[in-house]
Amino acid sequence: MTAYAAERVQHEGLRAKIMPAEQAAEFIHNGMTVAVSGFTGAGYPKALPTAIAERAKAAHARSEAFAISMITGASTAPECDGVLAAANCVSFRNPFQSDPGIRNSINAGNTAYQDMHLSHVEQQMRQGFYGDFDVAVIEAAGISADGKIIPAMGIGHMNEAVKAAKKVIVEVNAAQNAKLEGMHDIAYDIGVPPHRKPIPITGPFDRIGSPYLECDTDKIVAVVLTESGDRNSKFADPDENSKRIAAQIIDFFSHEVKAGRLPKNLLPLQSGVGNVANAVLAGLLDAPFDDLTGYTEVLQDGMLDLIIAGKMKSASATALSFSPDALQRFNDNIEFLRDKIILRPMEYTNNPEVIRRLGIIGMNAMIEADIYGNVNSTHVMGTKMMNGIGGSGDFTRNAFFSFFVSPSVAKDGAISCIVPMVSHHDHTEHDVMFIVTEQGMADLRGKSPRRRAKLIINNCAHPEYRDQLNDYFDRAEKAGGLHTPHLLLEALSWHQRFVETGDMRVK
Amino acid sequence: MTAYAAERVQHEGLRAKIMPAEQAAEFIHNGMTVAVSGFTGAGYPKALPTAIAERAKAAHARSEAFAISMITGASTAPECDGVLAAANCVSFRNPFQSDPGIRNSINAGNTAYQDMHLSHVEQQMRQGFYGDFDVAVIEAAGISADGKIIPAMGIGHMNEAVKAAKKVIVEVNAAQNAKLEGMHDIAYDIGVPPHRKPIPITGPFDRIGSPYLECDTDKIVAVVLTESGDRNSKFADPDENSKRIAAQIIDFFSHEVKAGRLPKNLLPLQSGVGNVANAVLAGLLDAPFDDLTGYTEVLQDGMLDLIIAGKMKSASATALSFSPDALQRFNDNIEFLRDKIILRPMEYTNNPEVIRRLGIIGMNAMIEADIYGNVNSTHVMGTKMMNGIGGSGDFTRNAFFSFFVSPSVAKDGAISCIVPMVSHHDHTEHDVMFIVTEQGMADLRGKSPRRRAKLIINNCAHPEYRDQLNDYFDRAEKAGGLHTPHLLLEALSWHQRFVETGDMRVK
Repeated sequence: MTAYAAERVQHEGLRAKIMPAEQAAEFIHNGMTVAVSGFTGAGYPKALPTAIAERAKAAHARSEAFAISMITGASTAPECDGVLAAANCVSFRNPFQSDPGIRNSINAGNTAYQDMHLSHVEQQMRQGFYGDFDVAVIEAAGISADGKIIPAMGIGHMNEAVKAAKKVIVEVNAAQNAKLEGMHDIAYDIGVPPHRKPIPITGPFDRIGSPYLECDTDKIVAVVLTESGDRNSKFADPDENSKRIAAQIIDFFSHEVKAGRLPKNLLPLQSGVGNVANAVLAGLLDAPFDDLTGYTEVLQDGMLDLIIAGKMKSASATALSFSPDALQRFNDNIEFLRDKIILRPMEYTNNPEVIRRLGIIGMNAMIEADIYGNVNSTHVMGTKMMNGIGGSGDFTRNAFFSFFVSPSVAKDGAISCIVPMVSHHDHTEHDVMFIVTEQGMADLRGKSPRRRAKLIINNCAHPEYRDQLNDYFDRAEKAGGLHTPHLLLEALSWHQRFVETGDMRVK
Repeated sequence: MTAYAAERVQHEGLRAKIMPAEQAAEFIHNGMTVAVSGFTGAGYPKALPTAIAERAKAAHARSEAFAISMITGASTAPECDGVLAAANCVSFRNPFQSDPGIRNSINAGNTAYQDMHLSHVEQQMRQGFYGDFDVAVIEAAGISADGKIIPAMGIGHMNEAVKAAKKVIVEVNAAQNAKLEGMHDIAYDIGVPPHRKPIPITGPFDRIGSPYLECDTDKIVAVVLTESGDRNSKFADPDENSKRIAAQIIDFFSHEVKAGRLPKNLLPLQSGVGNVANAVLAGLLDAPFDDLTGYTEVLQDGMLDLIIAGKMKSASATALSFSPDALQRFNDNIEFLRDKIILRPMEYTNNPEVIRRLGIIGMNAMIEADIYGNVNSTHVMGTKMMNGIGGSGDFTRNAFFSFFVSPSVAKDGAISCIVPMVSHHDHTEHDVMFIVTEQGMADLRGKSPRRRAKLIINNCAHPEYRDQLNDYFDRAEKAGGLHTPHLLLEALSWHQRFVETGDMRVK
């Protein structure tokens, strides 16, 4: 591996800093704040985390403390969050994660986790809200002769990480396609108030920066060579429920185009992570819309296939997260895709200024919604963290249309995704425009809470839960306040019933 | 009155359309959607609402239906929302209100109310989310010879209202200071995606539009003359609690300036409506900061006095809402103030793009916060609407610093403003940076929920409630999920206890 991988490091001075991961890990000490690249299973370091974990385990074996604060772009993978969690050496973590190991560490109280809007991460690092960053560990596809870094499949917060950190460790991954060079658009940066200027992005494919990540080469203390793929999780094939959800959204788009309220090629599409959101994009393959555009955090299989099929003309993202099959299609078509996909730092991708200006159509998965249109994206039964809010808040609040999608029930009907009150609020009634399940869609725009409740219960809830929801709503109306009727002691009882009996249904 | 007031209407064609309010009200029919100017007790029509209410009462006496959908800038006053609510003729209302009459109508289920982020209002009107607007009723300080409208003390959504409505009725109010002419800055408009451009505001005092509101004079079907003041509610003098809250925020500013993380003149200040937020600004009169700037929705007494005292060099708002004394000071100093205060449409004032770019310091009052940093700004005991979210969400999510302030207890200690779980979520844990009561401040930045809980309970809660809160938190930790520990059946029990016993305290 090494000889081939070393060719990716064209800069002489940095070539001299090539070293094994174990040696590079010695720059990481207990108590450090470390910025680690990675965004939704793409662009995370493959070797350093294991080496750091080994250092931690050795320290723990000597009864010495060893833990770091770790700030990523978004989620990473088993060989990053997973190995570090297993070594119990992540004392603080933000802003998003999805690895079962780190999730367990969070819910067991071993890792303090701050769940953040992704648009806040880079600016808060820059504004000094997290103090000093000791080290940044980032993945790249290569380093040019003049020391410029070619990012790999994800950028995330790398632009800020290399600026904020005192020392930088670069993993150069020869398994990443060398033709990624040129697909990135890196601007530095939106600055610190009061000296900020407008972000000059007026269309999803506007380039405003450089294809390279620039970093003072003196700050780069180590280059580590790797040759291993990204997480590349498989998506489930769209099932009947996902197809029904997709069909309703597409019908609505057709209706709005016909009414002249939406351009024929729609507006830039954002799609959250996951099977259902991905299925909506798959549904657009056969829909009567052309020249689509994408402006999204993570570009997944569904959007890739729209581009390859010629239905979507261009897309902007901060990371590419593909199944193994889709990765193959990406690599096979990379010459075609190079001028149709742009990767930007998350600070631009998720920026409210750009999202609102472009008029994004935001489509995000949810854990549950309540009868008044509040949405829980993060917590299982009110107390345990799932993955985090990610960029769903950045997109939802600033979208032209904001959709939340979910099958109406989970666990064979034991969990209803429509509940009297969500057990955690990530998106409030003020932000959510459409709830869509396989049962139907509720258009919440311009409606009071009680009108929303009727629509959500009757259109979106599973028939098996409708009586139970209507019963709650009717009794809450009789109890008093008629703006947002609730029974305070019963509002969260469905979740408690599930915790106790494994079923939300009243038997 | 009429002769003097008529001089304010310089346009000949429009002068011919001067008519009594009763006659103008005949343009309003049952079932209409009406855009009505007004923003926080300023700039609302003084005569038409009463005339419309009379039409409604007459219709109801004939057993005929008469109700309108009414979309304002923000809150109005008794002679607008109040008289219409008393006539029971508001079937739908958004986006913000604070009149007791309309509030009662909402909570009794007679008026369907949609509580909205103010930054969403104008764009959703323009994007067709509310269907057609039949009539706009707006207040002005005058009309120029070429038919341009000089707004009065508030702009709010007037720029969109006159564009969206088929017919426009202008109330020209001779009681408004004629020297308001030139203080407004009206831009049309941020447009509809995908054709939006950056908003070219890079400083709080940038002018980007015209001092006049332009409206096709053919659409103006009536001009009504009035001569009566705005709501001009009195503020309470800052009490001991408010002064303590202000002192902590000011101390924090000093600390941040010293650390180099905040400019010496701070960043543009936003202050929510109400006594406590106003008191924080009053506290800045004696603080060691000069050349302050304001970028806020509503400019109230506190900010006015900072400008008059020479501590604040300029401020941007969408409305001026003064106590009677402050109004006098405003009128006395209007020549001095004319080039220091700018009034813009709410679409610009509240725009996330501008708020985030400028790096606003947002300071808003709250009803309650919970131990994890979620904030309720709108609901009393979970079910009844107070005033609405207003612009607090626009500012909070995009602020450089976001503060929520409240005395730690209300009703002689029977209500704690720190509770286990807020009874309604308007600002989530992801958005709230600082909670401040007279007891102390909790800096929530970069902290996990459990660390936030310790800070909020120990720093902010009233001593009489700390044991009760710690007891809840301790038992919740023992119950399971250690990311956001909660006891689901007990989380809202404090509110229920208050509903039943009039006291949140466990006796």
